[in-house]
Amino acid sequence: MYAVDIIGQKRDGGELSPAAFAAFIDGAVSGRWTPAQVAALLMAIRLRGMSAGETTDLTGAMLASGVRVDLAALPGPKVGKHSTGGVGDKVSLVLAPLVAACGVTVPKMSGRGLGHTGGTLDKLESIPGFQTALSLDAFRMALAEHGCAIISQTSRIAPADRVLYALRDETGTIDSVPLITASILSKKLAEGSQALVLDVKCGRGAFMKTPAQARVLARSLVDVGCAHGVETEAVITRMDDPLGRAVGNALEVREALDLLRGEGPASLRLLTVTLAARMLVAARVVPDEAAGIEHADRALRSGAALERFRRLVAGQGGRLGLDDDASTLPVAEVETAVCAPRSGVVAGIDAEQIGRAALLLGAGRLARGAALDPAAGVVLGVERGDRVVPGQTLAVLYHAAAMPSADAERLVHAAVELGDTAPSVEPWIMERITR
Amino acid sequence: MYAVDIIGQKRDGGELSPAAFAAFIDGAVSGRWTPAQVAALLMAIRLRGMSAGETTDLTGAMLASGVRVDLAALPGPKVGKHSTGGVGDKVSLVLAPLVAACGVTVPKMSGRGLGHTGGTLDKLESIPGFQTALSLDAFRMALAEHGCAIISQTSRIAPADRVLYALRDETGTIDSVPLITASILSKKLAEGSQALVLDVKCGRGAFMKTPAQARVLARSLVDVGCAHGVETEAVITRMDDPLGRAVGNALEVREALDLLRGEGPASLRLLTVTLAARMLVAARVVPDEAAGIEHADRALRSGAALERFRRLVAGQGGRLGLDDDASTLPVAEVETAVCAPRSGVVAGIDAEQIGRAALLLGAGRLARGAALDPAAGVVLGVERGDRVVPGQTLAVLYHAAAMPSADAERLVHAAVELGDTAPSVEPWIMERITR
Repeated sequence: MYAVDIIGQKRDGGELSPAAFAAFIDGAVSGRWTPAQVAALLMAIRLRGMSAGETTDLTGAMLASGVRVDLAALPGPKVGKHSTGGVGDKVSLVLAPLVAACGVTVPKMSGRGLGHTGGTLDKLESIPGFQTALSLDAFRMALAEHGCAIISQTSRIAPADRVLYALRDETGTIDSVPLITASILSKKLAEGSQALVLDVKCGRGAFMKTPAQARVLARSLVDVGCAHGVETEAVITRMDDPLGRAVGNALEVREALDLLRGEGPASLRLLTVTLAARMLVAARVVPDEAAGIEHADRALRSGAALERFRRLVAGQGGRLGLDDDASTLPVAEVETAVCAPRSGVVAGIDAEQIGRAALLLGAGRLARGAALDPAAGVVLGVERGDRVVPGQTLAVLYHAAAMPSADAERLVHAAVELGDTAPSVEPWIMERITR
Repeated sequence: MYAVDIIGQKRDGGELSPAAFAAFIDGAVSGRWTPAQVAALLMAIRLRGMSAGETTDLTGAMLASGVRVDLAALPGPKVGKHSTGGVGDKVSLVLAPLVAACGVTVPKMSGRGLGHTGGTLDKLESIPGFQTALSLDAFRMALAEHGCAIISQTSRIAPADRVLYALRDETGTIDSVPLITASILSKKLAEGSQALVLDVKCGRGAFMKTPAQARVLARSLVDVGCAHGVETEAVITRMDDPLGRAVGNALEVREALDLLRGEGPASLRLLTVTLAARMLVAARVVPDEAAGIEHADRALRSGAALERFRRLVAGQGGRLGLDDDASTLPVAEVETAVCAPRSGVVAGIDAEQIGRAALLLGAGRLARGAALDPAAGVVLGVERGDRVVPGQTLAVLYHAAAMPSADAERLVHAAVELGDTAPSVEPWIMERITR
């Protein structure tokens, strides 16, 4: 099967066979297909689309380009979680130990942040000593010991995705639901879970801007995950405003610790507990979501989740404080307050602009592989619907003394929309998509 | 202007600006755009299409990537000619000296054959000593001296086209009217002509299979050529059957010499004289096509065209025979006759299959840069509409003794369709497309 024939089939709107996808992925990874040929097929897929069957086959070919972690030797259920990425999304930090504390193994491989959304690995690495580059054997051992582990995707997991993602990034073919689906699932299906709960973010701070777009992606992910024999469900959640108040790596770990103590913002707590409940249902630990919420809530209140987090961190070399878990986290040199210019009601907080402000302060990276400041970021002083008076602190910027903050201040001012009347209440959990 | 933004604009169906095309072509030639980015934009153009204005701008950017021959110093009109490629198409060999003999300068840069269609350069190079790799200065001098010259496209002419063509070839993006238009015209507009007559082939032996397809390409070529200030017209001609009887390099030169003596197949003669007439009209040498046909016919009969051909060949180092012009041409070692299996009427001769037969005998190349046998090819013994008896020679195959001919024989048998009733008469000249 020649590359040019496979490209031509998709160019003309045809359906590609499993053998064609196998040839494509083999060619892309081995270099037998030139980058130009891979890019041409990616653009043809972007413009012609793919059926659910084709997306399943592409996902399978990408999955087969690497190894699949075998967790059959571990007792009990294993359930994975993935978020499509939002601003202030530290849910995974809490969810993995929380669900593990409820008796479910949570194997998790994560990515790094790029642009205005953060990455779970970057957050964990703000804890001194925390190692994310574990071998698959060490990963399995950590899971056996602590019930959860969060590591970086090794080069052995879906290497095809790395090749394709780099080319999609440079050729304007990121925003394709079939390609996003195959990229996410080729990695998540390799983790060894029997079920997956996906948090599909929707709104101005997310990749999917409208409920309709988010629904299409969620449906694609659920269908393809299930077609590969992993019970997959998706929860569409609102990402117009940042999730919680902290945006920035160590700042988000602090907020995650609050949550693990049963504290922290109610919205963040609600979303975390709901996702945990979905995972417990998928693991057959509880019969329904209500029972799962109760179970997860208990694990937070009892300290069991926090204890499991301490084990996860210690198991991966991280050092938390003895009396105050957060005491070892890096602290920014400077705190700059951004204050309300007038009175009003917070009508909304633009998540993308807050994410960009944190990025400008050093919390994120503009280019792959760039360094970042683990202490930098933004902590919001207000939430949507809050009434403010002139001079009240809207947010505190955390940054190095040498890092200018004027652009970030402007972004925060633009992000925090002050109105005169209370905004409507919007649910954080918008929709559940199951098989 | 970033590559990914330009690609994204076309991906989303937008119209690209002249600056975007300039950035694209500059990036493709300099390597600042990766091959993957160039390929992604080519596929987006293939699937989203381009307006006439965009095609004009892309053509202009590709033209500007190289030099444009300046023939202002030469007196009199200059008119170019191009054929989109057919089987047995030796028209240019006759047309250039014929039109030059009528007082019009004909600057011509040609390509080599690939696949089942031949290239003018390969045909000329079957004449011992003939040089096609002339410098642009030598090209101008030959034009000044003989009124015509046929050389290879130097690397200084539209280098962007070479980059783009190689990528189109490997990525399934050849069959795009805007890209074909820009490829052809970026080279033809560089030749220095004030007018262009284009022979757009149509039929089973051509790239454009239907009149509708051919019309779209012809219209695009005419519009974009005229937009660049070169008076461009197109003639759509039938390419179901091979043009003339000879297919193969030296064999076609022989047939061209017949034509220059006022002999040769009537169909080939008709097409050549008509195209010559269009060029003479475009050059304002004659008032209309009828007068042009008369003028061209006279130049063939008088020997003026043959004399001009001899000057063209000698001027480029070629050695023809003294008494018999064709006597120096290479002769194949073996002649294999293909005979009619039964009686009947020739309902048609599939040009593509005859072209492939000649290719298998060594007359063409399957890969760019491959060697070919200048003596090899096929000479048909019959034409569409001829009545044949069993055992009558349908064609003679010319080839090296070591070259197997069985596959070519099979192709010729399949190509020559024998029916029981005379086929309808189809015109060779199907349509004229002017501004």
